[in-house]
Amino acid sequence: MAYAIGLDYGTNSVRCVIVNTANGKEVGTAVYNYPSGEMGILLDRKDHNVARQNPADYLEGLEVTIKKSLAQARKNDKKFRADQIVGIGVDTTGSTPIPVDKDGVPLAMKKEFKKNLNAYVWLWKDHTGYAEAAEITELAAREHPEYLAKCGGTYSSEWFFSKILHCLRTDPKVFDAAYTWVEHADWIPAVLTGTDHPSKLKRCRCAAGHKAMFNEAWGGYPAKEFLSKLDPKLGALRDTLTATTQTVDQKAGDLTEEWAKRLGLKPGIPVAMGAFDAHLGGVGSGIGPGTLVKIIGTSTCDMAVAPNTAKLPDIPGICGIVDGSILPGYFGLEAGQSAVGDIFNWFVNYIQPGGKKEGDHAALTAKASKLKPGQSGLLALDWNNGNRTILVDQRLTGLLVGQTLHTRPEEIYRALVEATAFGALTIINRFEEYGVKIEQIINCGGISEKNPMIMQIYADVTGREMKISRSPQTCALGAAICGAVVGGAYPDFASAQKAMCGVKAKTFKPIAANHAVYKRLYGLYKQLHDAFGTKGYNQSLYNVMKDLLKIKEEVLKQ
Amino acid sequence: MAYAIGLDYGTNSVRCVIVNTANGKEVGTAVYNYPSGEMGILLDRKDHNVARQNPADYLEGLEVTIKKSLAQARKNDKKFRADQIVGIGVDTTGSTPIPVDKDGVPLAMKKEFKKNLNAYVWLWKDHTGYAEAAEITELAAREHPEYLAKCGGTYSSEWFFSKILHCLRTDPKVFDAAYTWVEHADWIPAVLTGTDHPSKLKRCRCAAGHKAMFNEAWGGYPAKEFLSKLDPKLGALRDTLTATTQTVDQKAGDLTEEWAKRLGLKPGIPVAMGAFDAHLGGVGSGIGPGTLVKIIGTSTCDMAVAPNTAKLPDIPGICGIVDGSILPGYFGLEAGQSAVGDIFNWFVNYIQPGGKKEGDHAALTAKASKLKPGQSGLLALDWNNGNRTILVDQRLTGLLVGQTLHTRPEEIYRALVEATAFGALTIINRFEEYGVKIEQIINCGGISEKNPMIMQIYADVTGREMKISRSPQTCALGAAICGAVVGGAYPDFASAQKAMCGVKAKTFKPIAANHAVYKRLYGLYKQLHDAFGTKGYNQSLYNVMKDLLKIKEEVLKQ
Repeated sequence: MAYAIGLDYGTNSVRCVIVNTANGKEVGTAVYNYPSGEMGILLDRKDHNVARQNPADYLEGLEVTIKKSLAQARKNDKKFRADQIVGIGVDTTGSTPIPVDKDGVPLAMKKEFKKNLNAYVWLWKDHTGYAEAAEITELAAREHPEYLAKCGGTYSSEWFFSKILHCLRTDPKVFDAAYTWVEHADWIPAVLTGTDHPSKLKRCRCAAGHKAMFNEAWGGYPAKEFLSKLDPKLGALRDTLTATTQTVDQKAGDLTEEWAKRLGLKPGIPVAMGAFDAHLGGVGSGIGPGTLVKIIGTSTCDMAVAPNTAKLPDIPGICGIVDGSILPGYFGLEAGQSAVGDIFNWFVNYIQPGGKKEGDHAALTAKASKLKPGQSGLLALDWNNGNRTILVDQRLTGLLVGQTLHTRPEEIYRALVEATAFGALTIINRFEEYGVKIEQIINCGGISEKNPMIMQIYADVTGREMKISRSPQTCALGAAICGAVVGGAYPDFASAQKAMCGVKAKTFKPIAANHAVYKRLYGLYKQLHDAFGTKGYNQSLYNVMKDLLKIKEEVLKQ
Repeated sequence: MAYAIGLDYGTNSVRCVIVNTANGKEVGTAVYNYPSGEMGILLDRKDHNVARQNPADYLEGLEVTIKKSLAQARKNDKKFRADQIVGIGVDTTGSTPIPVDKDGVPLAMKKEFKKNLNAYVWLWKDHTGYAEAAEITELAAREHPEYLAKCGGTYSSEWFFSKILHCLRTDPKVFDAAYTWVEHADWIPAVLTGTDHPSKLKRCRCAAGHKAMFNEAWGGYPAKEFLSKLDPKLGALRDTLTATTQTVDQKAGDLTEEWAKRLGLKPGIPVAMGAFDAHLGGVGSGIGPGTLVKIIGTSTCDMAVAPNTAKLPDIPGICGIVDGSILPGYFGLEAGQSAVGDIFNWFVNYIQPGGKKEGDHAALTAKASKLKPGQSGLLALDWNNGNRTILVDQRLTGLLVGQTLHTRPEEIYRALVEATAFGALTIINRFEEYGVKIEQIINCGGISEKNPMIMQIYADVTGREMKISRSPQTCALGAAICGAVVGGAYPDFASAQKAMCGVKAKTFKPIAANHAVYKRLYGLYKQLHDAFGTKGYNQSLYNVMKDLLKIKEEVLKQ
């Protein structure tokens, strides 16, 4: 028997799973909520853009969850022994860079920086670097458009260099004290394997490729000359970054004696290179060529892979195309919707139709699921938080059309769900238009598990079967799969995934009559999408309200 | 001292006012709720289009309210005597036709028809004749487009011939028993003056012109040949209609001995020709050349007049242009918004944001009035019930754009109010584009009196001062003015209105900074208006969401 550990660092907590490599079953698991700040996030009352974390929480959480998971595994299975664990995998949020000194020690762990939030971990959702992001985008657009082509055309405030440049500009003391900056996803494997000294540190393909413009085509990280134009000190930092990056089939190193003792594990077991949570969620859901994995939560992450042996064109609007970022040997393609669950939450929490009880998700879903497609006469755009894919435009907003004097909350709720389904279909179509065929769709994340109405609407809108990942912890499972591969339980990801991943028996198949109505509604959605979201559109919208009424009347007559 | 009586027949009740002709002040008033059916309306559980009334309620209400008003006047003013009343005026809803026999007796008052709703009064909001309305529109469009040109291009199911033709088609027994059909507005003056026999009956210009396609330009009512094509029996009915129609400066007759005794009035006092409630509301608000009167309730009626000595072009989208329909000697121009208060009521009653308490009009208004123009980033179209003026299109629906994940109910409420203000401005512009200059705006109706925020938004959006009619009962006051004129207290309406009408001291003046923002928002509203509401529009809407965000950010920085 061989087991693997998966460590999944989320925004508010870290989860450990111990998985049987033969079948992917969890034998032990534990969660640790970061004790610092508010739900693990260090905030600044004077600036709502600030979101930092304490690296000490990560280490404490590592120890607590692995020990608890081991205890649970022993309890669940009398034959389980810790020395059956063959490898460890890690995923984290990102881009979540940590400033470290010349020995690799996070500044936040040093006495002199204890009180300075800038010395802590810059969490993915820290937006303080928005001006620097615009500056980087502008310079890249002018001098290196190829840098932007792989990340959807805009460099984000959430990414590596925006954060570092902002620190340089606003807190030079911290910047100067930092020898380099290390992604959370790189730091954990490095610590466990004693490779956290900058001379030994490896950096993962996933973070570097998606958030730091790393690409072998132009020699790795962006040119020193380019970074120097932003600031000579940023150019100098380029020298502390690595020439190559590693994918998750490679190991960061072997578990040190010290950590093995602390955790109750066998020393020397391999620890895989880290990756971002969503990407290992893709791995844990069984991603492979022809499979789209959708992680559906407050927003979505939509992932596909394509063999890196074939030539793949740049796909307009796809936010990331990185060789090996999801699966080794494949281009990892990342798309997403800026808000999905967040739109439903907005309607429930901000609008509260009918009050808190009448307007909660369960009550609205119960009523909305009785409606037929097209019956409400409503149509919405899913842009309350902008549009990530395919328009890559944060300066878009929501739209609802078709209201009468009798429109009810559940009709709006359903229209919002349908809008996100139309958005999902637009992403699928974009992949296929550029030769990335989608043969199956596997969903994971809270919404896919909790709300069958939503999954049925997604099936009916897309005309495709919706499968649900068997594991409710696909990110942690994906990390464990990395552990299994570097631990030698499998020669490659394909065979590991075949054994360890799966989908639930219950799937959602499109109902032909519903799909027929949604095809017509999608035509109208696409009209609005192109009219409000693209520059060149100049066709009449005179038909939209009339067609919605016509569809409504036809559906009601049936 | 001279007094006049105004009788105002609404949808659920009749109101009487006794007014001092010297200054327009009310000395006595009373209301009578129709006892029949539900709130005065006879309904059919099997057909929601049915809305009928009992003519007996009208007569009972007449007697009760006049007597009560006289008693109140005596109490209020010791010197008041009933024989100081010089005339009576009447307004009613419409088109509200009553089938009567050859002696002028309503069929509903005859034993054999007691149980047949079709023999009762067909209230304005009865929509059973929708198919017949479409048939009439189609035939007129083909053979007599000039008939439609004066009523906005579509003959409505709410109007005279649609109702009669529907009765003919579905209940020939009632149709055959009816010698003719009489508008409620014609029947009351006729009854009071003993001229209700078909041989003596006069018909008012207002109902005939706006709802029955009467126009002297083509010889009065529509040609017999035209009506016969719809049905020969409808053609035959044409012979029972009058060759001429009368305006409200003319009298229907003099109060009969019998009614004088029943009511406690002097016999022989003149009773003016009747008119529709909204039109006499215009009179009571002080309508005249250059003045727009807006009656703002669940929907609006927007009225203007233009001298009938000048040549007036057909104004596209204005739902009625009838010589003498509002003021004798002037073209009466009627426009309107299909829903105003109804849109706010929809949001409050159907969506109930935050529950019944949090989401009532007062709570939403309190919060919405703290917002600056443009601050929400939202923009709405006021088409939840279609668009009466200027698009004359019932097959349009509501639209809201600009929602984020933080949009709050009061922001939507304010956006809906602003949408109706943009709709109001579109009507004003249409009048002026065709040479009907609007120099002042007088508002009346519940919303104008109760909600200062709404009136301020109307002033800020239109860039014009909003005045409020002094009388809260402008329709009844307008009827009393008709009574004063036919009673000889004044030689004409202009002098009567000058003495008897007025506006409140508190008016709403546009705030320049707000108007500047609304000018920009109106540009965007007009883009959406034309894109979704007209056929030829083919300009880009790509700017709309971006401009809304830009305006929002600029406003928030101020």
